[in-house]
Amino acid sequence: MTSADTVTTLQRIANLLRIDSIEATQASNSGHPTSCSSMAEIASVLFFDVMHYDPKDPRNPAADRFVLSKGHCAPILYAAWAQAGAFPVADLKNLRKIDSDLEGHPTPRLNFIDVATGSLGQGLGFASGMAYAGKYFDKSDYRVYCVLGDGECSEGSVWESFAFASFYKLDNLCAIIDINRLGQSDPTPLQHDLETYRKRVDAFGWHPIIVNGQDVSQLLAAFKEASETKDKPTCILAKTFKGSGLQGIENELDWHGKPLGDKADALVANLRKLVNEESLVRPAIKKIVAKVPEIKKDKEIKLSSPPNYDGKKEIATRLAHGTALEKLGKACEYVIALDGDTKNSTYSIKFHDAFPKRFVECYIAEQNMVQVAIGIATRQRYTAFVHTFAAFLLRAADQIRMGAISFTRVKYVGSHAGVSIGEDGPSQMALEDFAFFRTVPHIVCFYPSDAVSAERAVELAANYDGAVYIRTSRPNFPILYKNDEVFQIGKAKIIVESSNDVCTIVAGGVTLHEAVKASEKLKAQGKAVRVIDAFTVKPIDRETILKSANATHNRIIVVEDHYPEGGLGEAVMAALADQADIKIIHLAVREVARSGKSAELLSKYGIDAEHIVNAVEKFL
Amino acid sequence: MTSADTVTTLQRIANLLRIDSIEATQASNSGHPTSCSSMAEIASVLFFDVMHYDPKDPRNPAADRFVLSKGHCAPILYAAWAQAGAFPVADLKNLRKIDSDLEGHPTPRLNFIDVATGSLGQGLGFASGMAYAGKYFDKSDYRVYCVLGDGECSEGSVWESFAFASFYKLDNLCAIIDINRLGQSDPTPLQHDLETYRKRVDAFGWHPIIVNGQDVSQLLAAFKEASETKDKPTCILAKTFKGSGLQGIENELDWHGKPLGDKADALVANLRKLVNEESLVRPAIKKIVAKVPEIKKDKEIKLSSPPNYDGKKEIATRLAHGTALEKLGKACEYVIALDGDTKNSTYSIKFHDAFPKRFVECYIAEQNMVQVAIGIATRQRYTAFVHTFAAFLLRAADQIRMGAISFTRVKYVGSHAGVSIGEDGPSQMALEDFAFFRTVPHIVCFYPSDAVSAERAVELAANYDGAVYIRTSRPNFPILYKNDEVFQIGKAKIIVESSNDVCTIVAGGVTLHEAVKASEKLKAQGKAVRVIDAFTVKPIDRETILKSANATHNRIIVVEDHYPEGGLGEAVMAALADQADIKIIHLAVREVARSGKSAELLSKYGIDAEHIVNAVEKFL
Repeated sequence: MTSADTVTTLQRIANLLRIDSIEATQASNSGHPTSCSSMAEIASVLFFDVMHYDPKDPRNPAADRFVLSKGHCAPILYAAWAQAGAFPVADLKNLRKIDSDLEGHPTPRLNFIDVATGSLGQGLGFASGMAYAGKYFDKSDYRVYCVLGDGECSEGSVWESFAFASFYKLDNLCAIIDINRLGQSDPTPLQHDLETYRKRVDAFGWHPIIVNGQDVSQLLAAFKEASETKDKPTCILAKTFKGSGLQGIENELDWHGKPLGDKADALVANLRKLVNEESLVRPAIKKIVAKVPEIKKDKEIKLSSPPNYDGKKEIATRLAHGTALEKLGKACEYVIALDGDTKNSTYSIKFHDAFPKRFVECYIAEQNMVQVAIGIATRQRYTAFVHTFAAFLLRAADQIRMGAISFTRVKYVGSHAGVSIGEDGPSQMALEDFAFFRTVPHIVCFYPSDAVSAERAVELAANYDGAVYIRTSRPNFPILYKNDEVFQIGKAKIIVESSNDVCTIVAGGVTLHEAVKASEKLKAQGKAVRVIDAFTVKPIDRETILKSANATHNRIIVVEDHYPEGGLGEAVMAALADQADIKIIHLAVREVARSGKSAELLSKYGIDAEHIVNAVEKFL
Repeated sequence: MTSADTVTTLQRIANLLRIDSIEATQASNSGHPTSCSSMAEIASVLFFDVMHYDPKDPRNPAADRFVLSKGHCAPILYAAWAQAGAFPVADLKNLRKIDSDLEGHPTPRLNFIDVATGSLGQGLGFASGMAYAGKYFDKSDYRVYCVLGDGECSEGSVWESFAFASFYKLDNLCAIIDINRLGQSDPTPLQHDLETYRKRVDAFGWHPIIVNGQDVSQLLAAFKEASETKDKPTCILAKTFKGSGLQGIENELDWHGKPLGDKADALVANLRKLVNEESLVRPAIKKIVAKVPEIKKDKEIKLSSPPNYDGKKEIATRLAHGTALEKLGKACEYVIALDGDTKNSTYSIKFHDAFPKRFVECYIAEQNMVQVAIGIATRQRYTAFVHTFAAFLLRAADQIRMGAISFTRVKYVGSHAGVSIGEDGPSQMALEDFAFFRTVPHIVCFYPSDAVSAERAVELAANYDGAVYIRTSRPNFPILYKNDEVFQIGKAKIIVESSNDVCTIVAGGVTLHEAVKASEKLKAQGKAVRVIDAFTVKPIDRETILKSANATHNRIIVVEDHYPEGGLGEAVMAALADQADIKIIHLAVREVARSGKSAELLSKYGIDAEHIVNAVEKFL
């Protein structure tokens, strides 16, 4: 096929993808056909000339990756995969139907989707993670492509990713911005000011190429230039028109997110003439040429050595986490870690120092860090542990939410939770982390209370087939468990008990130690209480707690270094909601906290041993 | 005073501020003296030469504003205010103590702090909001200054703010980046590459000025140039050294966030020589010259006209919200609205069309939008309503968290909540919004279920002296209430009741209508149930729910279009945790949702009328 033929064919395929996008959104009577149309040539060129992949084996680890950051253009993405042979073209008309995986925005329920998109501004970070893994972990030649919308370039997360990708010289990454000028309710801030885009992308260390995004030849040349650009990622700035190729609609506002209605038939008929499908010979999809190393995985990941504490020295769970992560790194080559300039606080530095090549310093850019981790964790090759202060993980809340829709297995580790951190004050105290993380479907939320359980939490996290949150603590805690104690997800531990306990106290982290102190004070007064270490806040151990409650006059006190909403307390209440007879007293932090010494704050906010004692007495 | 004298004096004051920062952090045995030292000249020049303000009236609305984005440098900020006369210098040694408002990071518990900082990357957005209000609402000459750290420039939120401020030509805004090269655990990505900073800031539409940030003369000249720069904000790129002026510590890693310990005395003694405090004549603080319009506030804000629905047409609460916001705008000049390119979905477009000058289009940059709103809302002049899809408010979760620590009164409005949005799929469905928003201390979370209550929610929100979240819905709902129905915060409504109800159903939004349908089906079977519209999820109306439960065999069903964690269900459980005897069945969305029709999804995830009927039958 001559080059001129290629160009003509790709242009015809672009129009075919336009037709598919229009017809699918007509069938669903919703969706974004005009946003699809602006990127039709980009999709055609990428899927039918540039990318090396196998439509019948879309998760092949050596294939080029594609991320559609502007997830609302799902119809044209589905059309490209269908036209490439991944599934029947006729299925496209099941778009957005409840029994079809061709959802309104892409999710990995489809085997050709690695990451869910649809919350704008996240795709480039996912792609950066894939490119980082390709260049530094897999050391492979596959390339990563990401199409962004222009509107989403207002999202700061995009610029975090631009900075990250150039800092790490990800020349295997190519972003394409579909600059179609129009957002949902207004023109974008920069409209068609391509020169400002160029300046910004250039200043952030990328190689910018401006093209007419509706011109197949220019796109082909740009992708070639991108593949030849070394030490820098490339950003193709494609000037396009929303609704391109759709007369009367192209470049007009108020056509965002709407099917074309009664205009569709005529427009499709017109496009069909341009396609002339009967004579269209689809180019062969480029074969996969890259190689990737095989990753051998054991059935069970084990710490290289068990916890080893003498029980005398107090240890912070954040430190024990770092110790365990280093052990995990020794045992498993595919465990990697990320941090956002807090590694000397979260103790991920222990992993960094032992395995510098498997550590990704993401600097103070938590959104991108989480996106990169989700990208690295795709195709189930690497197990990624993400670290920062628990409070700052919330910076990436929407990314973590989208990670859930991607069914990611990323392990989030947040340190410095609760008022017990002390003097740094409320901005550094996570008091809502469990409330947020508990909402992630099927996540496991660990809250280890000593060094032994913290190490085992890390081990269990690595083995769990899904997302995990581990809350670690800043203060040093006494050791509670023997080094050979066995922990399970969803299994609480009874720390203190007797045959005549007057109530059950459920706690975790610093408040567990306060509960133990309270039990000792109460014992001195002749009152016995049962103390339970929740260990996992989700799933919560309903059975142990219920049995304990029943054995202790159906009285429960939950005490937590967290706001009252959504944390351990409400987890316990939810687990027992169907039970009559049980009364619960809940001690938690009920106002904006302040600076002070850890013990002073625990007292001020009513979650220390003294307040627990008072709560028990109130019960009696 | 000659110019040379000014320079010398400001340099001496810079060293005085260094001493204060060291001594305060020595007294608290924690804090960030080296991060303070790098910005000592910047602080000295701003507080003792550049800014117009009154240390005795720090919240004067006509004063220049100062935002310390790098909140961990609180000690030098406090020192500047103390040395300017706001409070006794001796108090600085109470830093980080539990009975002092001089917290580890600044909060508005101090009357000279407008916004809490300490989660990095947020200050410039707050400052942009203040500058926007100054230029467009107050139309005043006060200026806004914001000092950022270099490390936090990795945060995307910073670049959202850079883009916003130049788009709106905020020439009354001056950012100063304290480029001291060192982050917490590593050098920053750009270290002292000032030229790349210059390119980035320039590309984002600001006027960049590179200075030696330890040189008072250069800083004075730069601030003058900034004040003369029109139609662009200015960014002073100050090359500094962490620990500047502290021999043996300056420009060294591993000195982040540590007091100087036994090195302090010698370093302070050395600095004292440079200060020679006895002979130091502090310059007079520049008097406030700007004027601001007086804003007259009525005791109670009222909708310009009451709800006006004929009860026949179904109306979406998002639309009713827009209607009410427009009415509020008519009634109150100080109500303003912001949206992130979703105004035609959230219906803030109704306010936009009526009051274009009081509407701030923030484009797809939710973090900055929330920061801007918090900035606009400072000094209690403007009441700001922030809009986007509820799912995307989560993008600004950390900003909302920090807003709580700022005690902001911003009103957050999230539309398109829950699976009931239908075909767009899970990325667009907020199913964790209440779990997050409920954690904000003292917030009110409204969940209106019809147009009448939606309008009243907006009115109550405007009057509430604190932050508010309103969850609006996409589908049209029947009208439930008369136009003159009176609503109160924390007061639920009993929608369906009889004297022989077998259980109580608590719901909100779409599930309330499903509960009403269920009650009708059950009635046909001869079973009466009570149906309660929660109206506010926080505070939850414990009294009404408890009384209803007691009157209906202590059986409650909570049904919500939300994940099971942290929403209406757990709010009800928490309210009744101290009650024995009550059993609760909880219907909620328990997995990652998918695309489909609204009714199909309500059924699939078990929260429609049929599932409610089944739950009631299970109870009997």
